[in-house]
Amino acid sequence: MELGVEGRAIFREDHNQFRKTVRIFFRREIEPNLKEWEKAGMFDPGLFKKAAEYGILQAGIPVEYGGMGGDFLHHAILHEEHGYNAAGASMGGGLGIDGSSYVIWAGGTDEQKREWLPRYASGDCIAEACFTEPQSGSDVAGFRTFAKQDGDDYIVNGSKVWTTNGSMCTMLPTVLKTEMGDGTVGMSIVLIDTDMPGVHVTKGIETLHRGCANEAEVFFEDVRVPRERLLGGRPGGGFKQVMSVLNDMRVVEASRFLAAAELAFSLTVAYVKDRKAFGQRIFDFQNTQFRLADIKTEIAVNRAFVDQCLVKAIEGSLTSVESSMAKLSASELEFRTVDQCLQLHGGMGYAHAMPISQIWTQARVHRILLGTSEIHRLAIGRSI
Amino acid sequence: MELGVEGRAIFREDHNQFRKTVRIFFRREIEPNLKEWEKAGMFDPGLFKKAAEYGILQAGIPVEYGGMGGDFLHHAILHEEHGYNAAGASMGGGLGIDGSSYVIWAGGTDEQKREWLPRYASGDCIAEACFTEPQSGSDVAGFRTFAKQDGDDYIVNGSKVWTTNGSMCTMLPTVLKTEMGDGTVGMSIVLIDTDMPGVHVTKGIETLHRGCANEAEVFFEDVRVPRERLLGGRPGGGFKQVMSVLNDMRVVEASRFLAAAELAFSLTVAYVKDRKAFGQRIFDFQNTQFRLADIKTEIAVNRAFVDQCLVKAIEGSLTSVESSMAKLSASELEFRTVDQCLQLHGGMGYAHAMPISQIWTQARVHRILLGTSEIHRLAIGRSI
Amino acid sequence: MELGVEGRAIFREDHNQFRKTVRIFFRREIEPNLKEWEKAGMFDPGLFKKAAEYGILQAGIPVEYGGMGGDFLHHAILHEEHGYNAAGASMGGGLGIDGSSYVIWAGGTDEQKREWLPRYASGDCIAEACFTEPQSGSDVAGFRTFAKQDGDDYIVNGSKVWTTNGSMCTMLPTVLKTEMGDGTVGMSIVLIDTDMPGVHVTKGIETLHRGCANEAEVFFEDVRVPRERLLGGRPGGGFKQVMSVLNDMRVVEASRFLAAAELAFSLTVAYVKDRKAFGQRIFDFQNTQFRLADIKTEIAVNRAFVDQCLVKAIEGSLTSVESSMAKLSASELEFRTVDQCLQLHGGMGYAHAMPISQIWTQARVHRILLGTSEIHRLAIGRSI
Amino acid sequence: MELGVEGRAIFREDHNQFRKTVRIFFRREIEPNLKEWEKAGMFDPGLFKKAAEYGILQAGIPVEYGGMGGDFLHHAILHEEHGYNAAGASMGGGLGIDGSSYVIWAGGTDEQKREWLPRYASGDCIAEACFTEPQSGSDVAGFRTFAKQDGDDYIVNGSKVWTTNGSMCTMLPTVLKTEMGDGTVGMSIVLIDTDMPGVHVTKGIETLHRGCANEAEVFFEDVRVPRERLLGGRPGGGFKQVMSVLNDMRVVEASRFLAAAELAFSLTVAYVKDRKAFGQRIFDFQNTQFRLADIKTEIAVNRAFVDQCLVKAIEGSLTSVESSMAKLSASELEFRTVDQCLQLHGGMGYAHAMPISQIWTQARVHRILLGTSEIHRLAIGRSI
Repeated sequence: MELGVEGRAIFREDHNQFRKTVRIFFRREIEPNLKEWEKAGMFDPGLFKKAAEYGILQAGIPVEYGGMGGDFLHHAILHEEHGYNAAGASMGGGLGIDGSSYVIWAGGTDEQKREWLPRYASGDCIAEACFTEPQSGSDVAGFRTFAKQDGDDYIVNGSKVWTTNGSMCTMLPTVLKTEMGDGTVGMSIVLIDTDMPGVHVTKGIETLHRGCANEAEVFFEDVRVPRERLLGGRPGGGFKQVMSVLNDMRVVEASRFLAAAELAFSLTVAYVKDRKAFGQRIFDFQNTQFRLADIKTEIAVNRAFVDQCLVKAIEGSLTSVESSMAKLSASELEFRTVDQCLQLHGGMGYAHAMPISQIWTQARVHRILLGTSEIHRLAIGRSI
Repeated sequence: MELGVEGRAIFREDHNQFRKTVRIFFRREIEPNLKEWEKAGMFDPGLFKKAAEYGILQAGIPVEYGGMGGDFLHHAILHEEHGYNAAGASMGGGLGIDGSSYVIWAGGTDEQKREWLPRYASGDCIAEACFTEPQSGSDVAGFRTFAKQDGDDYIVNGSKVWTTNGSMCTMLPTVLKTEMGDGTVGMSIVLIDTDMPGVHVTKGIETLHRGCANEAEVFFEDVRVPRERLLGGRPGGGFKQVMSVLNDMRVVEASRFLAAAELAFSLTVAYVKDRKAFGQRIFDFQNTQFRLADIKTEIAVNRAFVDQCLVKAIEGSLTSVESSMAKLSASELEFRTVDQCLQLHGGMGYAHAMPISQIWTQARVHRILLGTSEIHRLAIGRSI
Repeated sequence: MELGVEGRAIFREDHNQFRKTVRIFFRREIEPNLKEWEKAGMFDPGLFKKAAEYGILQAGIPVEYGGMGGDFLHHAILHEEHGYNAAGASMGGGLGIDGSSYVIWAGGTDEQKREWLPRYASGDCIAEACFTEPQSGSDVAGFRTFAKQDGDDYIVNGSKVWTTNGSMCTMLPTVLKTEMGDGTVGMSIVLIDTDMPGVHVTKGIETLHRGCANEAEVFFEDVRVPRERLLGGRPGGGFKQVMSVLNDMRVVEASRFLAAAELAFSLTVAYVKDRKAFGQRIFDFQNTQFRLADIKTEIAVNRAFVDQCLVKAIEGSLTSVESSMAKLSASELEFRTVDQCLQLHGGMGYAHAMPISQIWTQARVHRILLGTSEIHRLAIGRSI
Repeated sequence: MELGVEGRAIFREDHNQFRKTVRIFFRREIEPNLKEWEKAGMFDPGLFKKAAEYGILQAGIPVEYGGMGGDFLHHAILHEEHGYNAAGASMGGGLGIDGSSYVIWAGGTDEQKREWLPRYASGDCIAEACFTEPQSGSDVAGFRTFAKQDGDDYIVNGSKVWTTNGSMCTMLPTVLKTEMGDGTVGMSIVLIDTDMPGVHVTKGIETLHRGCANEAEVFFEDVRVPRERLLGGRPGGGFKQVMSVLNDMRVVEASRFLAAAELAFSLTVAYVKDRKAFGQRIFDFQNTQFRLADIKTEIAVNRAFVDQCLVKAIEGSLTSVESSMAKLSASELEFRTVDQCLQLHGGMGYAHAMPISQIWTQARVHRILLGTSEIHRLAIGRSI
């Protein structure tokens, strides 16, 4: 069975071709370098240019903006392939910087789009939306990063954490306040180059995950940014700009989470069919088959829902509650099933050398990032 | 929100119309009589004739065979409506005798179809496939009911349990052995009238469910049945005849289970929004909202899968593993979520007067009938 | 293995002797009548006099107050035996009216104790504390039943629900307000005879449980009660009077819940060792053994805790948080494990004739009565 | 509340004093060096000599054998303190080499005891029982490491994995076969110095845990060992020698697992009481309190059981089934609760800098080592 393709009716032939290209890219450009990158604690930023050569960045953006002219499913496939490949777990956010390009695509002026999107596509721009602040997880209303107007410029002060790929970013679309006010009032997005004076990006912080992912802290100290860097040209629209994109992004990530669960399942099936204990294959124990049966069922059930959501995302009919449900359900399922898969590996599941161990530590953060499970339960609960 | 209709893309307008008719039938012909039926421990067999008048029996069978000329989704809707209506829980299998008519439809000779299907449609024939035997739950290979050839007749001996609506049945398509052999060899289906000499049907046995459902035991003592009552005209095809229908039936039932979960959810939301404790609505407790959020999510996710399976059932592409996954997942979900809903009712959830209590006791058997959860884990596990 | 005795170090020989007596009582005086009582929907109130003859009522109350002169563990054993006997599940609260006698023992004047406790012991007084009101589950602050002073009397108005054994009670120690005020201010307990004018006790309400338990509603309409019926002689102490007893009672009930789980476990082991499927004993499937291993483990772990709490209850050092933890943990465990046990019975688990079905429906209410699981999580959470 | 002391009735004053000493040791000798050791990927083997100076090694061994003359609870306390200290999680097995010394204590000749136990106590001997082999996890019958008799010596060939602290060990009590035969026949224990020719110990393998634990592989190539190194002086008793100790060790480790859960709980309570979101403390969300209430309950319940088992271990009455139940229950509880605790930390829970993240990754292996949860379910299931 070909993971990601079989049994999924939502893809056209060009999508499947694109997936093949991404898979070749992972095999040729990522897998051989992974160990080295893990030793260095970060993957090589040059990977983005390599990806551009394969034509797999900005796949869903129209050709006139430098994109590949595909659709949202091409975009989703790039994320999914991080899940379908063990190296993807090691890389954390990996190549998934499209989140920030989609923010520009959705909220930028035409000029901004023409300036930035081609750079994303060529790998010249490595960017990640700066969102979370140290003192406030998902509580947007508590943001303190502030851009004060000063003539034609803004002076930005504040700090951000959990900036994925932060150490290699060239630009940071930063969600901040241009006006003090309650809740999400006065929230804007400003495109800040990392080489602007006053921008300090730390090395990636150490997490419990032992891969080559990168999560950096960013500090802004009196950073002067020209007004034309304000996304959409007008202040105050930041919350809406982020949220519209976040909705779709969560489903794309949910699809990646499921992909990782599917990979873990198939790795585990192979392992337990090969490994023996007490004179028979581990697969032949009824407990093994019952656990695998539950995992297979859970994945199949969730896949139907997430694929349904992906289709709605293309059509533009995906609601924020559906997006929350997809993210909540897929991230909880991913961890729960990968945890069972690790257990079926016995002691070997704990060894770094086995892909399952990395899929597992990476899966843990998925219940936290893009809104914790609790945040999504809150949001879904409010809709009832 | 209209249960069963909103958010489900698989139905056409004629399906929705049919659902309305079924709903009116439940409201007019069932709800007013429920208490009386419960006191009697069985619903009135005359209900089948009433249902025929509403045109809701055999909805998926072609007109030429006495059916309504609809499709498999019409059929599914009748089952779903047992889930979307609290009275449906009380009735157990209720009007869902189509299982046995589909067995005839799939495996009968043309003559048999023309003889029996119109009787099903008119409510003249009340029938249920006799399957489970006392000594063997889902273990078909252990069946002992035997039909011995005797000239142009068969002489049937044996017994069956858990015959739904058994006490009101006029005919019993009985799965039995016409030849002794291992496994499913020599398995056949014979259509036996309940008024044939030697057929004894008990009153419904008492279960932990306090409704008007009926589950009877059947004993065959030297029952002489003419050979033309052998389904399909030839012995030995019984296992295949049953299995092909069972596959689709499980999905239809899975859809009913989800419907019941949806009903329980909506009853519970109404209850906790109305009821107060400690000075606020029960709905306003975060625990309530978190539990409801999880339930809403689980239902939405499973609904996508089951609807996908229903479509495959129409197309004829549904595999037995998918059918097992749908049944396993939906029945476990139904009980788990209804149990949470009952808990959110507090003490009132335990009172027979509250629909949630009946939905709950009925849901319990769904993890057992049509193959226990363990049987389906076995089957899914074997496919891996 | 003898249930309730083996592996438990907290009992002396006289406790074990007492347990034997209770067991004989169940076998001789209850089991033979159970079917008849279930048909009647209530067990015979004469059972209390019978129990008195066996010397098993008021076992923990000193001899001078008519009791048996045992200790709190004798008292606990009577409750446990409802759990260790399948008929106990059918009877709901059964003989466990000691809750209300302990309230008198803990809060009554010496005169009140000398008047009432011997009547409990002789079976002349059948009584149950009236607590829950229709509009407020566990929310004591919302109680509306009120006793207005009128000369030397009180005039009581209000209503109560879920009064266990209510239909057979001769007296009702009723928790009510003698003064309007916030929270538990002005709460008192008044001993009200059921034959006083204005007291109306309904028949037991129907629940989802199909046994001979009795849960009645009580209405007080201008019931005139002499002032000496005020427990402790002074108004306002009702909350404390109830709570001190409730603490210990919850542990006694927790011990009963565990007993029921142990009974279910042993019934199930016997069943799966006897019953075959697919050519082997159900016990021989690994899934069966894994489930039973988990159940055995959970019960053993909880038993250690509950026995520890019972010892603390005797010593008077049991905290309300420990009591909440015991009740929460044991009731959730009971239902969870009994549910698994029922599943291992397959279809037979659903039949009323099998004890497991009654243990299961009875277990369900244990997560609700004496404070729902949610109430106890609240209380435990507040202590952190 | 003082972790490990309050609420536990099993300890005497000398135990509590000993615990204080161990705690000081952790604070002074371990915590300040932890970061450096983590960078090095291994803690300093000199720590054992330091521990000897504090008098905390071999605390349960009689003075005449170089021990501290305490009892089994002193021994348990050293393990527990690995759980009650965040640095303990980082160190994996840490100072817990007593497992192998107890094997000598239980199975050695008096001469062997007098030779080896004082060296353990002085920190001169660092040793770990070599058990698991690459091709067979817990399946003892599949062991291939073989000691062939050759005159007065044995020639050992084979390999072992998951040797805790292997890279720093000076001696390895190795479970191997001295005779080929089915099952555990011919199993013996040989004390092999790591500097004997032919012994190769690898560096610690990388696991998913990012601390300073050490798990090495060991290869034996024609290692010549004098016959007096055979534990107990006679071949063939190896299985019994290991199992008797393993029984008690599992409970000691279970107690450590609970300690870690208690630590995680208290760290989390402090965190959520300090941290705010949406304008209130995270502690003030009902979901937080409900989760914490469940965790507190689970820990309290399990603690009662494990303490009961510890007492039985001293008395010598602990059965292998009780030991399995303690290990299974405590390890599953530890991971489940620590996982919830991590989640309540939000994003910070994923950062290596937060102790919770290390407790979590360490907890994962506890469901695998000393027999996986599945192995213990098997063993418990067989006892039913």
